[in-house]
Amino acid sequence: MALKFLTQKIAQAIDEELFSSGGFSVDQLMELAGLSVAQAITKVYDNSKYSRVLICCGPGNNGGDGLVAARHLFHFGYKPNIFYPKQSKKELYERLVIQCQSLEIPIVTELSNSSLTNDNDLIVDALFGFSFTGEIRPPFDEVIQKLKVTNIPPIVSVDIPSGWDVEKGNVNNHGLKPSMLISLTAPKLCANYFNGKHFLGGRFVPPGLKEKYELNLPLYPGTDQVVDITDLPGEKL
Amino acid sequence: MALKFLTQKIAQAIDEELFSSGGFSVDQLMELAGLSVAQAITKVYDNSKYSRVLICCGPGNNGGDGLVAARHLFHFGYKPNIFYPKQSKKELYERLVIQCQSLEIPIVTELSNSSLTNDNDLIVDALFGFSFTGEIRPPFDEVIQKLKVTNIPPIVSVDIPSGWDVEKGNVNNHGLKPSMLISLTAPKLCANYFNGKHFLGGRFVPPGLKEKYELNLPLYPGTDQVVDITDLPGEKL
Repeated sequence: MALKFLTQKIAQAIDEELFSSGGFSVDQLMELAGLSVAQAITKVYDNSKYSRVLICCGPGNNGGDGLVAARHLFHFGYKPNIFYPKQSKKELYERLVIQCQSLEIPIVTELSNSSLTNDNDLIVDALFGFSFTGEIRPPFDEVIQKLKVTNIPPIVSVDIPSGWDVEKGNVNNHGLKPSMLISLTAPKLCANYFNGKHFLGGRFVPPGLKEKYELNLPLYPGTDQVVDITDLPGEKL
Repeated sequence: MALKFLTQKIAQAIDEELFSSGGFSVDQLMELAGLSVAQAITKVYDNSKYSRVLICCGPGNNGGDGLVAARHLFHFGYKPNIFYPKQSKKELYERLVIQCQSLEIPIVTELSNSSLTNDNDLIVDALFGFSFTGEIRPPFDEVIQKLKVTNIPPIVSVDIPSGWDVEKGNVNNHGLKPSMLISLTAPKLCANYFNGKHFLGGRFVPPGLKEKYELNLPLYPGTDQVVDITDLPGEKL
């Protein structure tokens, strides 16, 4: 049976259930999501070749996943740098920033083109997740334009390639073209239009939720927090 | 340089720093601690032979680590059972219980001798951690007596073998005799008296803290959340 790709509505419903009847806190799920992102990166981009990782963090939960991933990447021997132009005032996000600062991970609010191409071996796109709707507002419209330059390092997107429609994909070519995607909980419909390396993270979905939404999730190997689903039959269009 | 074993006072000071200047929440550190416990178990006790795991949870943070470990053990293919006689009313603990319930992990408040020996392949001792002082109060005095029977399954202790003095070890033979110990952050002084399989978990200590307290922590392999320190030169007495 094919892995189910989620509409935005179903993705939001599953997320809400994890927090309500599932009893999870944002802290917990973000910790596991960020860890899975960092782990997936180690599987494809070895830290001997791709040590300098720029993590681009958006204003919401996707950016929080990026901040957590930055911390774990540091512990996995990478040299993360964070670009976080619009910092949330929520307590959790302020703490995630402090955690990165205590590892002396540089955090910047501006991106220069030369730094993008010269100072980084890999870029993590943690700008927008499955909740994204509408137009891309400043400063992220410019950020996405900068990240679309062809000669920049490979891009790894968290949950959704930023600029894509969650269901329809890279409509009007507005979005990024990542080399790798780490879907969280279950891929969203737009992953149908993605052809690169594809991992699934979020090894926390209770059987009841899997059944209710017929997610048909694959087995995670060993104690891994991610599973490679690049070649898994999905809900291809 | 030898790995540093911590006094109770230093362990508490490090813990406090992780939460204050380190910016961590209990949710986050407990999630990573519980995950490391579950992962260490997979390295020694394969789920094909040791599927039925009884996790004995105390009233404090050590019990919380146990609840998180139970959840991850479920996802790693084990069949956890929880013994949690004195349940905390704190919101975090209530949520950890809900998370286990959503996986249909049975939670009991009484232990029978026959169940201990017949229904379990492995026991996780998450009763008391490094904050423990004084006498073992009911119902845990009886619980520890039950767990001291020799013909029960192997015991894995979280951070401290319960009933041990945090610094002086198994004083007056009051405590458990685990086969495996998973020290968290850094081993406590009592680990000097422990001779079984020994793992270290807690891959989140910032370099500043490591230096300040001269922890001399070993390198964690790959993306593992635990490292085997059984044969590592420690601060042996």
